[in-house]
Amino acid sequence: MMKRSICVICVLLALQLVAFAQDQQFANLGDFKLQNGGVIRNCRIGYRTFGTLNSDKSNVIVVPTWAGGTTDQLKSNFGPGRLIDSTAYYVVAVDALSNGVSSSPSNSRLQPRMRFPEFSLRDTVATQHELLTRVLNIHHVKAVVGISMGGMQTFQWLVSYPDFMDKAIPIVGSPRLAPYDLMLWQAQISALMRDRDWKGGNYTANPARALDFAFGELLLTTPADYNRRKTREQVFADLEKAGKDAHRFDANDKIRQVQAMMQLDIPLESAKTVKAKVLVVVAKYDHVVTPGPATEFATLLGAKLLTLDSDCGHLATSCESRHLNEAVKDFLN
Amino acid sequence: MMKRSICVICVLLALQLVAFAQDQQFANLGDFKLQNGGVIRNCRIGYRTFGTLNSDKSNVIVVPTWAGGTTDQLKSNFGPGRLIDSTAYYVVAVDALSNGVSSSPSNSRLQPRMRFPEFSLRDTVATQHELLTRVLNIHHVKAVVGISMGGMQTFQWLVSYPDFMDKAIPIVGSPRLAPYDLMLWQAQISALMRDRDWKGGNYTANPARALDFAFGELLLTTPADYNRRKTREQVFADLEKAGKDAHRFDANDKIRQVQAMMQLDIPLESAKTVKAKVLVVVAKYDHVVTPGPATEFATLLGAKLLTLDSDCGHLATSCESRHLNEAVKDFLN
Repeated sequence: MMKRSICVICVLLALQLVAFAQDQQFANLGDFKLQNGGVIRNCRIGYRTFGTLNSDKSNVIVVPTWAGGTTDQLKSNFGPGRLIDSTAYYVVAVDALSNGVSSSPSNSRLQPRMRFPEFSLRDTVATQHELLTRVLNIHHVKAVVGISMGGMQTFQWLVSYPDFMDKAIPIVGSPRLAPYDLMLWQAQISALMRDRDWKGGNYTANPARALDFAFGELLLTTPADYNRRKTREQVFADLEKAGKDAHRFDANDKIRQVQAMMQLDIPLESAKTVKAKVLVVVAKYDHVVTPGPATEFATLLGAKLLTLDSDCGHLATSCESRHLNEAVKDFLN
Repeated sequence: MMKRSICVICVLLALQLVAFAQDQQFANLGDFKLQNGGVIRNCRIGYRTFGTLNSDKSNVIVVPTWAGGTTDQLKSNFGPGRLIDSTAYYVVAVDALSNGVSSSPSNSRLQPRMRFPEFSLRDTVATQHELLTRVLNIHHVKAVVGISMGGMQTFQWLVSYPDFMDKAIPIVGSPRLAPYDLMLWQAQISALMRDRDWKGGNYTANPARALDFAFGELLLTTPADYNRRKTREQVFADLEKAGKDAHRFDANDKIRQVQAMMQLDIPLESAKTVKAKVLVVVAKYDHVVTPGPATEFATLLGAKLLTLDSDCGHLATSCESRHLNEAVKDFLN
């Protein structure tokens, strides 16, 4: 009886340790110098870990977040049969700058709102490199894997730190935004900045949440997919709900992340410097990260290319997750 | 010599008469009662005619304008080898309500700006019916042909006045907006109405012209087509130019026309009442007027269906004009 009780406690403790590891953690990087000469004061980077680090630290996979996303939202991608099997790998998921968790306009005490400096995805990746090398004492990883803006950071990792990883998988990411992508992001931040409530970033009511939602509805999948899933009545109910549901959205955070994406421009020549093996995943009907630049870079790298072709567009990573997860698993093995 | 001189003068006069006919004309309909109980005060409808009316008035084709468009912009569609051969037909092109030529928020003296009442496309078509029957004394037409919002009006003509035409060709139009289309229009007018310069419609600087332009760039064709035509640099040059180029755009006019489109909802049952022969033209990758509802209505009508399938999307009517013009010509003969 006693023995069995202890065992139950052991299990509960073990589960709690796993739960703790998955909890939000932070690294303080101090004043962080940016490529453009600016500084992020008291730079703080959020992260979570999943799984167990090998004794020789050979099973680390770094996963940066997508635009507006957090490591909390990444959780469901880790586990047996998921995008990355965290029973085999030690996943370090990192919150990108300006996602509202890591240093951002919405949470910086010394550089609040639009006083938060413009930065690039090269800076974002540099914060992750510091986290790994200086805080977690990890100097080489098995792979970097990212979705969407996480995929853009993955391309940046490949050229910023070519010796750091064995493999890399940018998924519906891009080494540089295509003209269409630039137009859609510029339109979104212009709409935010012209909103009557934005007030140079000094808003009390968070502006244009409904419009931000609408851009997502229009572009994250395809018109054919949207019309199949929605009724005419739902359109208005969805918009009304989005207008009220502003709590997880900060306009200034979004503006700074979008500016970072728009500045991304990895030169074609730098493909020569890449050392890792790369699997590039694109979605044929992706209307957010159109697949041209990633496809071109994959050719230059001689990388494997997986093209998802459902009409789910940018969300093909969900709709075709079984296909994607299999391909990622095979490539990592 | 004398005879020859007279002949030259005759030709010049004849050409001038044709030019006069194509000039902007107006019909005053007085106070025009709307379906919703409202009234457009001193309602004025713009129109232009092309070609020559037969003695038995059997060659009339009515062509309503697209959203934001004018009969001036329709001109290039009329002539030998064009969409409608105005050497064979007498074209009456009509300016839709709130296009800035016919009665609109921007030009109404008694009901300026947002005091201009909301109306429907059923009202818009009713103004055209009055113009034809009461002003031009035309009581039956060969056909109604319209592109985009002109196609929506064509569907409305079919059910409002089923005995009025022999044939009808709605081109990239719709009997009702699909969920995707509702979302995109609602997003556009919300952005206009939340713009810091809109001020309840009482603006001095016309708001959000660049954003309006951006929606067009993102949705009028497809991402693949856009990326083929544009460079990254052009995106910003185009947006800057659009921001300055506000003279042909009025936010309030647009809002009222968009509201009319969003209210359009021709019941499926009314397909039974249609008497005309119909050719429905849709574009497979149309991201502005998605083709579902028009295709469904075509099936109910037993109508001919032409599907344009280039990646020009909504602008397939230009990209595939040769194919379209041939089909229209064959159908009208």
